Amino acid sequence: MATTVGILGGGQLARMMAIAGAPLGLRFKIVDTVADACASQVAPLTCADYNDFDAISSFADGIDVVTFDFENVPADTAMFIASRVPVFPNPQALAVAQDRLEEKQLFNRLGMNTPAFATVDSREDLDAAVASVGYPAILKTRRLGYDGKGQIRLRSAEDLNAAWAKLGDVPLILESLVAFEREISVIGIRGRTGEFKTYPLTQNFHQNSILSASLTPAPNTAAFAETAVGYAKKLAEELDYVGVFALELFVHQGKLLANEMAPRVHNSGHWSIEGAVTSQFENHLRAVLGLPLGSTLETETSVLLNWIGEIPDALPVLQEPLGHWHDYGKASRPGRKVGHATFHGPAAEVAQALGRVGASLKREDQVAPVLTAMAA
Amino acid sequence: MATTVGILGGGQLARMMAIAGAPLGLRFKIVDTVADACASQVAPLTCADYNDFDAISSFADGIDVVTFDFENVPADTAMFIASRVPVFPNPQALAVAQDRLEEKQLFNRLGMNTPAFATVDSREDLDAAVASVGYPAILKTRRLGYDGKGQIRLRSAEDLNAAWAKLGDVPLILESLVAFEREISVIGIRGRTGEFKTYPLTQNFHQNSILSASLTPAPNTAAFAETAVGYAKKLAEELDYVGVFALELFVHQGKLLANEMAPRVHNSGHWSIEGAVTSQFENHLRAVLGLPLGSTLETETSVLLNWIGEIPDALPVLQEPLGHWHDYGKASRPGRKVGHATFHGPAAEVAQALGRVGASLKREDQVAPVLTAMAA
Repeated sequence: MATTVGILGGGQLARMMAIAGAPLGLRFKIVDTVADACASQVAPLTCADYNDFDAISSFADGIDVVTFDFENVPADTAMFIASRVPVFPNPQALAVAQDRLEEKQLFNRLGMNTPAFATVDSREDLDAAVASVGYPAILKTRRLGYDGKGQIRLRSAEDLNAAWAKLGDVPLILESLVAFEREISVIGIRGRTGEFKTYPLTQNFHQNSILSASLTPAPNTAAFAETAVGYAKKLAEELDYVGVFALELFVHQGKLLANEMAPRVHNSGHWSIEGAVTSQFENHLRAVLGLPLGSTLETETSVLLNWIGEIPDALPVLQEPLGHWHDYGKASRPGRKVGHATFHGPAAEVAQALGRVGASLKREDQVAPVLTAMAA
Repeated sequence: MATTVGILGGGQLARMMAIAGAPLGLRFKIVDTVADACASQVAPLTCADYNDFDAISSFADGIDVVTFDFENVPADTAMFIASRVPVFPNPQALAVAQDRLEEKQLFNRLGMNTPAFATVDSREDLDAAVASVGYPAILKTRRLGYDGKGQIRLRSAEDLNAAWAKLGDVPLILESLVAFEREISVIGIRGRTGEFKTYPLTQNFHQNSILSASLTPAPNTAAFAETAVGYAKKLAEELDYVGVFALELFVHQGKLLANEMAPRVHNSGHWSIEGAVTSQFENHLRAVLGLPLGSTLETETSVLLNWIGEIPDALPVLQEPLGHWHDYGKASRPGRKVGHATFHGPAAEVAQALGRVGASLKREDQVAPVLTAMAA
């Protein structure tokens, strides 16, 4: 019998996982709350609420292993499924990553520095937190935030009441807004037997708090690469993590600060589809199925450009010999990730292609910081 | 609206096309006579007879372009669809490739040498054909043969009656059985605007008349590479061909003999999924949709091993850093292509991986000729 992988969540990550798994002979069953979730174009999808345990139970029938396309699956649902089918990563690891406070506390426990932070459960807590963390700071919901959602920047005491009015009805965390030099991500993978690998470090670029571009291998990382990989390994072992995850790190005054962990395949690893021997999607599947992990070696330089809101004209990318196109088959919506492009090859040629594509699509702003990083 | 591609035939070629097309944002509709054709695991499939024009007509609704997964689609069906939806390659090109006699006559008309051949429509024709072509020879049905099916070798006059009894009720062709040194294939692509590219030449290896392995780039081709590419280009232009095709050539006493043309993506081009900048599957889709063709450059050496009959243990391949696995999700059956593996990287490391995998899977016979060719 063919092996069937169940995925909770049917967005582009599930979609790219199903595409990567097909050559391995895998079948997929996907569950999402939205009937036309984009993974439904490549694998059968059950539309159900994650709290509908009858639906979740029949979804789990005939599935060999369950994994996730996003980290905000309700913990009860993850536990319920885990009682019937092996689930990777384990629900405890998911739970830690779902809570910004627990996550940062874990980072510190493991000896990883973080930006200063404090719990905020009341208006009084907020004053105390600001006194300890200082300005500028960023007030975040502890749970369910992504792509800059559920976050407010605080520049002075004048911002406090408005921020509290907006976010104060859920548990919060206040974090120091560090003027970091760069954001780097480590894409790590741990197999069922403890086998551990990382992809080469990726440097990330943002616009409006959303990843807009990434560059792999990240330039000039000799001073901290080993530390970064060590952090990722320690974290994965502590959580008994199985699968792919991303650890986002700030580089600040030459030191690393742990920002957050995403317990899943990650946008900053999409370059690996064309740019690494084995993509993060295939490696996640290998890990959760207990198969040997594939090589994470990069082959030359890769740059990713995210398409946010709506997908641009494909032609300038398709005309580039080093260009690759990814359309997630999603409807346009402001702030929504609807696709990406990668450019893969010798660094100088990648830079030239980026320049041409940036000009053709009038996205000079998006490519400029990448070109600057490549020239450094 | 998303672009939808219709594919006639739902085997592994359609499957790999749908997997390659998903990142381009394409949707697929597939028609096959078998309900569980393996492409149905990755795209919606209509089960219908190709002569059921009602079913074919509703299949064609909402499709932007139609293409093929196999060349033996009935010509009437291809013409019927072409009257409603753009069809690439055009049905005339398909018709030529469906008939071994017309195909060889075309090769000769275009100045390409072929093994000697003669038409056989009667028992008397067979005697005359043998007199002109000589022994050893191979008697083939003009239509519907593949993987050595519909073929009988003739070594002397004693074989004639039995061969005639077996094949004599359909139009036949007798071909000289050339003791060629090597078989090479050219995978060519022609776009809607006439843009033409080829992949690097591939050397093919057979067991029981079925492709068992291929090696790209084919070694030692300087003496004839330009001629081979010129043949492919002339052929594509003559047929006003759009899409990917394979031209199989024998190397015999240092000269090229055209064997056959496959008007579709081809088994000897599967290495391009990992081994070229753009795979043959993506490039076929680009061509039929009128998009720019992607780069066909190879990145290092690629070796393909076909899995025939049943799929072996994946582990020895998954353990190889240079190994990639392709399981078509098909049931086992003698002589059936059910999957393949590729090994992609520096030639010396590819050869080592092949040696290990051949030993683990007890397939030394399959890998030995490839290793010999690589060492030459």
